[in-house]
Amino acid sequence: MPPFPRKVSDSTVRRCSLYLRTLEAMEEEGATTVSSRVLAQRVGTTAAQVRKDLSLFGTFGTRGLGYEVRSLRERLREILGLAQEWPIALIGAGRIGSALFEYPNLRRRGFEIVTILDRDPRKIGRSWDGVRIRSIDEVGEVIERLRIKVALVAVPASEAQGIVDRLVGCGIRGILNLAPARLRVPDGVTVNEVDLALELEVISYALGARGAVPGEIRQDVTSDP
Amino acid sequence: MPPFPRKVSDSTVRRCSLYLRTLEAMEEEGATTVSSRVLAQRVGTTAAQVRKDLSLFGTFGTRGLGYEVRSLRERLREILGLAQEWPIALIGAGRIGSALFEYPNLRRRGFEIVTILDRDPRKIGRSWDGVRIRSIDEVGEVIERLRIKVALVAVPASEAQGIVDRLVGCGIRGILNLAPARLRVPDGVTVNEVDLALELEVISYALGARGAVPGEIRQDVTSDP
Repeated sequence: MPPFPRKVSDSTVRRCSLYLRTLEAMEEEGATTVSSRVLAQRVGTTAAQVRKDLSLFGTFGTRGLGYEVRSLRERLREILGLAQEWPIALIGAGRIGSALFEYPNLRRRGFEIVTILDRDPRKIGRSWDGVRIRSIDEVGEVIERLRIKVALVAVPASEAQGIVDRLVGCGIRGILNLAPARLRVPDGVTVNEVDLALELEVISYALGARGAVPGEIRQDVTSDP
Repeated sequence: MPPFPRKVSDSTVRRCSLYLRTLEAMEEEGATTVSSRVLAQRVGTTAAQVRKDLSLFGTFGTRGLGYEVRSLRERLREILGLAQEWPIALIGAGRIGSALFEYPNLRRRGFEIVTILDRDPRKIGRSWDGVRIRSIDEVGEVIERLRIKVALVAVPASEAQGIVDRLVGCGIRGILNLAPARLRVPDGVTVNEVDLALELEVISYALGARGAVPGEIRQDVTSDP
């Protein structure tokens, strides 16, 4: 069976990420096998969904015995492209960029920010934890030299599309966009957007649907000294 | 038809957020009506999906004429709970908290951080743009006084569950979690997680599926002065 079937939905890939984390945690807890039922419970889905997702990528597990934790973990790491580390370019050395750089889980998951690019002359030349901030005008040279395929984009919305066009031109094939802007990219380039306002709207919808009323926007003044 | 049907999937809510943004942009561009086909194109879905999503919430649009931009925009704002503003508590005044506080789109979408809580005595008492950083021990008093229902959690993973238990105990009903930790909450509380490593795994999967090979992790040293 081919390792990468044609049609795998975004939500299947996300669940595979969660299966992988769960398997890693279980391995640390000393488990050697796991049933689809237990895996499903820990991830918050159904056993049938676990079996369906995994069957896309081959035959795993033994009826009645479940999955072997370690080998499924290894296979999922391969499937998710995590068997190797990915060098990452961070575009934008502002507050969001700085938060991304410090985000504790990225390096642990094999994503390492190896270059930081910005256009602000006051930032260029500084280093964050040994990684130098370079001028965005060096983008082509740096991405080629370090053979980077994935970029994190944390620039103002108005600059995002221009930056992304340059990144794609330089050979970037995957972009995680934190700028509040929809991006257009050619076929063969993957963009994934993290839009915090949209994530909050999912919550405000759920609260509204349950009849919750937002408080009022009031200044927090009462207990000032 | 009731405003909140029983079963609305997370992906429908997300698409409704995107429809709303598109309608807002079109209104600025001067459009007064829009077809499901054009709305679908701009959001990246199908016309049938647009019609199906919107039909969950009532009857919109006129056959052959499409939707009236302004009234659909208003209705979607109501559906998404955005007709009023939501006061937000930010938990964690670290780098990620600071990036969230500065995130340009939140206030524009009606989400206003009205209080910031942290446990670090060096941060407590400072202000960000007029909003005071308070001790996490004041959480109950502040959330009740400002009648806050929604919190942004940006604390270390090891502290996240403890904080969330306290927030739920104080009346918080919606949580956007940026800590790399799965959270348990009781029924009636909505948690939405933004997991940046998982978002990058969606990209590494897509690149792996297309045969892209990650570069090597190398130090960026060549062009040092």
